[in-house]
Amino acid sequence: MTEQSGSGRITANDVARLAGVSRSAVSRAFTPGAYVSRDTRAKVERAADLLGYRPDMLARSLTTSRTFLVGVITTHLDNPFYATLLQRLIEEIQRAGMAAVTFIADETSNDERISQLLSYRVDALVLTNTSLSSKMSVRCARGDTPVIAINRYLEVDNIVSVTCDNELASAAIGKLFVKKGRRRIAYMAGEPDTSSSRDRERGFRAGLSELGATLHSSAVGNYSHDGGVRAARELLSSSVRPDAIFCANDLMALATVDVARKDFGLDVPGDLMVAGFDNSDAAAWATYRLTSVDQNIPGMVRSAVEEIEAAVVERGRMRRRVLIPPTLVERESTGGPKSIDEPKYGS
Amino acid sequence: MTEQSGSGRITANDVARLAGVSRSAVSRAFTPGAYVSRDTRAKVERAADLLGYRPDMLARSLTTSRTFLVGVITTHLDNPFYATLLQRLIEEIQRAGMAAVTFIADETSNDERISQLLSYRVDALVLTNTSLSSKMSVRCARGDTPVIAINRYLEVDNIVSVTCDNELASAAIGKLFVKKGRRRIAYMAGEPDTSSSRDRERGFRAGLSELGATLHSSAVGNYSHDGGVRAARELLSSSVRPDAIFCANDLMALATVDVARKDFGLDVPGDLMVAGFDNSDAAAWATYRLTSVDQNIPGMVRSAVEEIEAAVVERGRMRRRVLIPPTLVERESTGGPKSIDEPKYGS
Repeated sequence: MTEQSGSGRITANDVARLAGVSRSAVSRAFTPGAYVSRDTRAKVERAADLLGYRPDMLARSLTTSRTFLVGVITTHLDNPFYATLLQRLIEEIQRAGMAAVTFIADETSNDERISQLLSYRVDALVLTNTSLSSKMSVRCARGDTPVIAINRYLEVDNIVSVTCDNELASAAIGKLFVKKGRRRIAYMAGEPDTSSSRDRERGFRAGLSELGATLHSSAVGNYSHDGGVRAARELLSSSVRPDAIFCANDLMALATVDVARKDFGLDVPGDLMVAGFDNSDAAAWATYRLTSVDQNIPGMVRSAVEEIEAAVVERGRMRRRVLIPPTLVERESTGGPKSIDEPKYGS
Repeated sequence: MTEQSGSGRITANDVARLAGVSRSAVSRAFTPGAYVSRDTRAKVERAADLLGYRPDMLARSLTTSRTFLVGVITTHLDNPFYATLLQRLIEEIQRAGMAAVTFIADETSNDERISQLLSYRVDALVLTNTSLSSKMSVRCARGDTPVIAINRYLEVDNIVSVTCDNELASAAIGKLFVKKGRRRIAYMAGEPDTSSSRDRERGFRAGLSELGATLHSSAVGNYSHDGGVRAARELLSSSVRPDAIFCANDLMALATVDVARKDFGLDVPGDLMVAGFDNSDAAAWATYRLTSVDQNIPGMVRSAVEEIEAAVVERGRMRRRVLIPPTLVERESTGGPKSIDEPKYGS
C-alpha cells in the first residue's frame, strides 16, 4: 500500500502493545473461526479502534492459502426467488467470516466472469441459477477451486449441486390437481435447458401418472412474467381449455392468474386452478393467494456454505448432489384455505 | 500462494513468450482500461488460455495502490427496487473492470460490515439504501476510502450522494391528484428516518400546496408490503376516507390496492386513486396498472460508477449531491391509460 493510506502504517504489533496482549492474540482475534477469549477480544478491539487499525486481508492471503473471498455468480435479480436466494447466501457467507465477490452473468454464458473471479484467487465459487461450461469446469479443477451450484444440477466433474427436491414437490402438485378432480392438466415450463425446469416437468408427469392421469398440454414461459403472459394466452386459447396449470415458477403463475381473470374472465380456482413454485412474497398477497412450493432457501444456503467450508479445508475432488426437502404451501388458487398459510409437507 | 494452486506458477513472462509479445503487453491486456491492440489482445488471450494463466489481482494490488474491488453494502433484496438496483450496479462495476464485494446490512447499522470491507482494501465503498454512521465516515476519510451513497442523502463529510429528484417527482404526483379532482389526499411514508421518505413527503406537500390543497391524512408503512397493508387499513378505516393515496414505494402501493379492493370493496381508481414510487415490474401487471415514478436506475448507477472512477484517481475530499431526473409513469390507478405505458416527464 502507498503512503496515501494513513491507517496502513498501524501494525498488529502496535495493537498488541496497546492492548497488552501477544501479537498472535491480535492475529487470532481477526481470523474467522480462530479461538480467542472474550476478554482478550474486547481488549484487542478497543485498542484496534483507538489506533484505527484494520487487519489486511490481502497481506494475510499471501501467507495463507486463503483469501476468505467467495466468488458468487448469479443472474436475473428481477426474479424475487433469485434475489432472496442471493441475500441469504451473502448473509451466510458473512456469518462464516468470509466475503462474497458477486458477479452478474447470463444463465448460460459466464466464462469471462468466472475467469475474473479466479484472478482474485477466491476460496470457492458459487453459481446460483446458472451453469458452468465444461471448459471452465476443467480450469476450476486445475486451480483446485471448489465449485458449488445452487438451484442447478450440473453434469460435470468436481462440483457439488444443492437443489430442493424438485421432482418430489412437483409430483405432489400433480397429485393435488387429480385429487381435486381436475382432468385437463397443463404444465408451463421455465427455461427449457435448465435442470430445474426439466426436473419439475419430470416429477409433475410422474405424480399425474401415479394417479392414472396424463398431461393435457404444455407451453414454455421461460421463468419470466412476460413469458408467462404469452404462455398462459397460448394454453387458454386452446379449443379444449385446461382446468389446472402448474407453472414452474411463481412469476409465471402470477401472470397466469392475471391472464385467466383479465383476458378470459375465468374464476380462479373455480374455472382454473393455478400452482407455482418458489413461494415468493407475492404468492401470499390477497389478490393471488397462490399455491406454491417453498424451496427452503435457508436450508439451501446453509448446505452450500457448509460444502464451501469442507472443500476449502479438504481441497479434495468432489461430485455430490445435496437434496433439500421442500414444502408445499396450499392456498386459495387450488381451493386451499382462504387466509391462513398452512405449510404441508410434500405428500 | 501455496503449491496447491497449479496455475499459480504460470507467469506473465510465460504468456508473453508463447504469444510472441512483450511482458508489458500481457500486463496491459489484463489491466482494465489500458490500451492494447485488438490483434495483440487476441494473441495474449489465446496463449493465456492454453497455459491456464490468470492474472493475480492480489499480487498486483501490492504493487499498485488499487485492488479493483468495490465494496457494496445493501439491504432488503426482497424489495424489487433494491434487487434491481444491486444488479445494475454490479453490472456497471463489472463493465468498468472492477469487482463488487457485496455485504448485506441493516438500513441503519452496518459498522461491522464496513470495517470488514475496509480490511479488503476496497478502492471505494458504495452504500445503497443504507446509511453511514459518523464514526465510520471518519474512518473512511482517514483511510482515504471514497464513499458513494445511492438512494440516500447523507449529511456527513467526504461522501457523494446519488439520488433521483425525489421532491420533484413527488410534487408531480401531488399536482396530478389535485388536477384529477381529488380533495382528501393522503401520504403513506416509508422508513420515517430515511432521507428518501422525508424528501418524498416534503415534495408531495409542496405539490399539493402549489395548487392550493393540503394533506388530509398520513400513515407509516415502513416500505414493506406488510407495513403497507396495515397503513392502508388505518387510512381507509377513518370516518372520512381519503380518495387518493400516494405511497412512498410500490410495495406499499400494491398492498394498498389489494386492501382497498378486498377489505373495503372499493374501486381503484373510481373510489380511490393510488400512486407508488419505483416503477417496479409489478406496477405494470394487469391487476394493478399502478401509476409510479421511474427513478432511472441505469442513470443512477452510471453516475455512481463515474464518481468512483473519479475518486479513485483523484483521492480528493468530496461532498457532492448528484440528482438524477425521474419520470412519472401514469397508469389506470390514477385514471391514466388502460394498457399502453406513457412515460411522462415529471411536470
